[in-house]
Amino acid sequence: DRPFTLIAGPCQIESESHAMETADSLQAIARRLGIGLIYKSSFDKANRTSLNSARGIGAQRGLEILARVRERFDIPVLTDVHLPEQCAPAAEAVDVLQIPAFLCRQTDLLLAAGRTGAAINVKKGQFLAPWDMANVAAKIASTGNERIMLCERGTSFGYNTLVNDMRALPIMAQTGFPVVYDATHSVQQPGGLGSSSGGQRQFAPVLSRAALAIGVAAVFIETHEDPDNAPSDGPNMIALSQMESLLSNLQHYDRLTKGMA
Amino acid sequence: DRPFTLIAGPCQIESESHAMETADSLQAIARRLGIGLIYKSSFDKANRTSLNSARGIGAQRGLEILARVRERFDIPVLTDVHLPEQCAPAAEAVDVLQIPAFLCRQTDLLLAAGRTGAAINVKKGQFLAPWDMANVAAKIASTGNERIMLCERGTSFGYNTLVNDMRALPIMAQTGFPVVYDATHSVQQPGGLGSSSGGQRQFAPVLSRAALAIGVAAVFIETHEDPDNAPSDGPNMIALSQMESLLSNLQHYDRLTKGMA
Amino acid sequence: DRPFTLIAGPCQIESESHAMETADSLQAIARRLGIGLIYKSSFDKANRTSLNSARGIGAQRGLEILARVRERFDIPVLTDVHLPEQCAPAAEAVDVLQIPAFLCRQTDLLLAAGRTGAAINVKKGQFLAPWDMANVAAKIASTGNERIMLCERGTSFGYNTLVNDMRALPIMAQTGFPVVYDATHSVQQPGGLGSSSGGQRQFAPVLSRAALAIGVAAVFIETHEDPDNAPSDGPNMIALSQMESLLSNLQHYDRLTKGMA
Amino acid sequence: DRPFTLIAGPCQIESESHAMETADSLQAIARRLGIGLIYKSSFDKANRTSLNSARGIGAQRGLEILARVRERFDIPVLTDVHLPEQCAPAAEAVDVLQIPAFLCRQTDLLLAAGRTGAAINVKKGQFLAPWDMANVAAKIASTGNERIMLCERGTSFGYNTLVNDMRALPIMAQTGFPVVYDATHSVQQPGGLGSSSGGQRQFAPVLSRAALAIGVAAVFIETHEDPDNAPSDGPNMIALSQMESLLSNLQHYDRLTKGMA
Repeated sequence: DRPFTLIAGPCQIESESHAMETADSLQAIARRLGIGLIYKSSFDKANRTSLNSARGIGAQRGLEILARVRERFDIPVLTDVHLPEQCAPAAEAVDVLQIPAFLCRQTDLLLAAGRTGAAINVKKGQFLAPWDMANVAAKIASTGNERIMLCERGTSFGYNTLVNDMRALPIMAQTGFPVVYDATHSVQQPGGLGSSSGGQRQFAPVLSRAALAIGVAAVFIETHEDPDNAPSDGPNMIALSQMESLLSNLQHYDRLTKGMA
Repeated sequence: DRPFTLIAGPCQIESESHAMETADSLQAIARRLGIGLIYKSSFDKANRTSLNSARGIGAQRGLEILARVRERFDIPVLTDVHLPEQCAPAAEAVDVLQIPAFLCRQTDLLLAAGRTGAAINVKKGQFLAPWDMANVAAKIASTGNERIMLCERGTSFGYNTLVNDMRALPIMAQTGFPVVYDATHSVQQPGGLGSSSGGQRQFAPVLSRAALAIGVAAVFIETHEDPDNAPSDGPNMIALSQMESLLSNLQHYDRLTKGMA
Repeated sequence: DRPFTLIAGPCQIESESHAMETADSLQAIARRLGIGLIYKSSFDKANRTSLNSARGIGAQRGLEILARVRERFDIPVLTDVHLPEQCAPAAEAVDVLQIPAFLCRQTDLLLAAGRTGAAINVKKGQFLAPWDMANVAAKIASTGNERIMLCERGTSFGYNTLVNDMRALPIMAQTGFPVVYDATHSVQQPGGLGSSSGGQRQFAPVLSRAALAIGVAAVFIETHEDPDNAPSDGPNMIALSQMESLLSNLQHYDRLTKGMA
Repeated sequence: DRPFTLIAGPCQIESESHAMETADSLQAIARRLGIGLIYKSSFDKANRTSLNSARGIGAQRGLEILARVRERFDIPVLTDVHLPEQCAPAAEAVDVLQIPAFLCRQTDLLLAAGRTGAAINVKKGQFLAPWDMANVAAKIASTGNERIMLCERGTSFGYNTLVNDMRALPIMAQTGFPVVYDATHSVQQPGGLGSSSGGQRQFAPVLSRAALAIGVAAVFIETHEDPDNAPSDGPNMIALSQMESLLSNLQHYDRLTKGMA
């Protein structure tokens, strides 16, 4: 068992300078703590609650920026893809393609992502049982690409509410693929604000600790220097200024679980 | 209030002759009963549980067959689209584009569908509250196309189970758009058979009656001459031989609810 | 199949005169419509959300009043029991003992109720699958008393929300016991107002229609001349002035389902 | 913050010798690890799935045995009460009265328990939101007894399934009362075996770790020397032989969370 990897970054790419600054801060934190970092940001928010929500910077410009982050900081970069044709160009710019939860059963997207040879982080659909992720992983693995991560980000629980069934972590781990815990979207309240999704940022740290106490390969945390004014997922992102103490705390649980304490 | 429309057909297009025979049977039933018919069939099952499940006949051949059904029987035809670029060609072959439940928040798909000017049947995501469908409809309506139907097909309820919250029907109707009740997918048990979805066909008739007692504009029922040997959704499709008596029964509830008894 | 019976009355006994007036109004409505009536009222609200909520008139005084309602109007009367020792005295005053949903697994209460020989209406727990009600009924039937009714009143769905899975009606009917649909508590929002439960009275009529379209033996509707000022369950009770038109409408669905149209 | 207390014992009292032997083993383990122990066992299983399930040894004999356990080992003892009149005699024999989850809204039971002055462990109903436990605690506190513990044991999630929303732990802690995590009943599958409840014992250790990583005052674990042959809750009890290593592991998480590492 290796120490957990951090997947982190701002929910969406706001500008090249914003991406560079955030990556710089995250890399400094990760280095100080000795944590492996994958930089995450989205070029397109393809499934916002409302049409009036910010969509993002677009694929071409976004992938350019991500490629520069990767080059400048020499860190792996992750972004999410929404359509099969986005996979190949995205895989040139980034190291990890992420399949959004709503799209985790879209066979063509999974196959196109798999065929790039990039690592794939698939989020478990809010509508899916954890044991059904084995079928999802098998679709990707059919391309010969077994660089697959399975990500817990909450399951539908009544309306406008998600719940983390923490049993999902060991259940998904039975596939043999590394499991990621997404602390940011697990505390989302989908559609809960009427024309946007709400969130419960205050629970992200405790739920992350719980996930690391159970044991995961990576933790996914979106962060922003000013979450309350971020263009998306503000209610559930963690302030950049709080990341270091949070991660330092999480390391203790990770080491304990993996016998490295 | 007008009598309910029937949206029916086999889950997927199996062959031209199979499509023609099913459409012929359904049109005969619909004429005898005086029910408006929209013929439904899919050219691609894009989100099957497992990769080994039948995908379908493909877009080009499928749309050709659907166009011929439309021409031969002079009935409106519905098919589901999964990617933005499928919308324009599909809208040439059929009258109604259907947005699958998993994809009901994918903005580009909704906009591409809306821009065709075709009628759009959007299924409510299993992860979505019924009041959140107003945002979905608004995305489509932003294209100037208000030929929108909102479809109830069950909401996630624990694992591998869906439940119809029948309050969703009047809640979605508050948008002003017609509401469709999908009896076939409401009784699906997603992933419930391990590598495919199970179903509870026996509940489709009673739940349809309930929906018509509340009041809907259309009922969606997939049907097959031999459901147990159909390539998809067999456990929840209704046998073609049982459709006429079912529909005749449903008409009574529809008339009662709409004051036409 | 016989026409549905109406179980109705104010949530709790407020006073003898209030009980008499409500029973008088309900009997008049039931006679005009030709509906069998069971008068329902509670002498104790034993599980209110908050301690500050009104508890009720108490067992002794409450049972006296219910006995007088039964005598004056010559109608069967139903009340709920919460403790084994309440069963025998309650069974002297009323005809039907009701087991509250939270208590549907309390073996001693079920046995004590069964041993009185009175008819028993058991509400399905919000935490129970409909098929598990067969075990509940078997507990009562073990006393030799098979005068059992099984009642759907909603199932937990996330927090502060109930959902009616309408499949519960035919599933519970497979036990052979008559099934009751409780329209009032199905639209309750448990704890939803912080220190009391909320409700969605507006959905009671449509859900009742749905239940009768599926087919039930009885409909349970709490009613009050001024629901907004009732001491309990106000948000989900139906105004007494609206009962006649509601019931008249429901009769049409009942007749249709039972082939008496 | 103090180290977590262990609430443990066999689900039900099987005999005096069985109680003594189990208490002896648990006390030895607790002493070796330096963990505070509350011995738990039930004299009556009042809400079994089926009438044919073992009910238990009865109140009089059971309380005698528990009083002897308390005397012999000089440890606090906990048992659950189901009826108001059981509270006073139980409070003479034991130190902590437990309110079962199904009964957590029964006002008279809460008040009777509170009036004994004993400590009260109230389980959160499977049908209750965690924030609604503040009302439950207030009922008990109204008696002047504030020795209250609030216990998470899972929330209804579809049928025959419970889920731990781990956010419930900090939410209930906001009341100021200590929070208990019940690892045994959280992995119960209510009614899941048809005429009895199933369980997923394998998840109790990981979920306990998660709870301690978040932070709780006590962990509740039922244990038996031969769980597969225990008269109740066998599928979810932990083998006595595995308790010491489990608890030793849990201590690390507890110390980390409480800054005692």
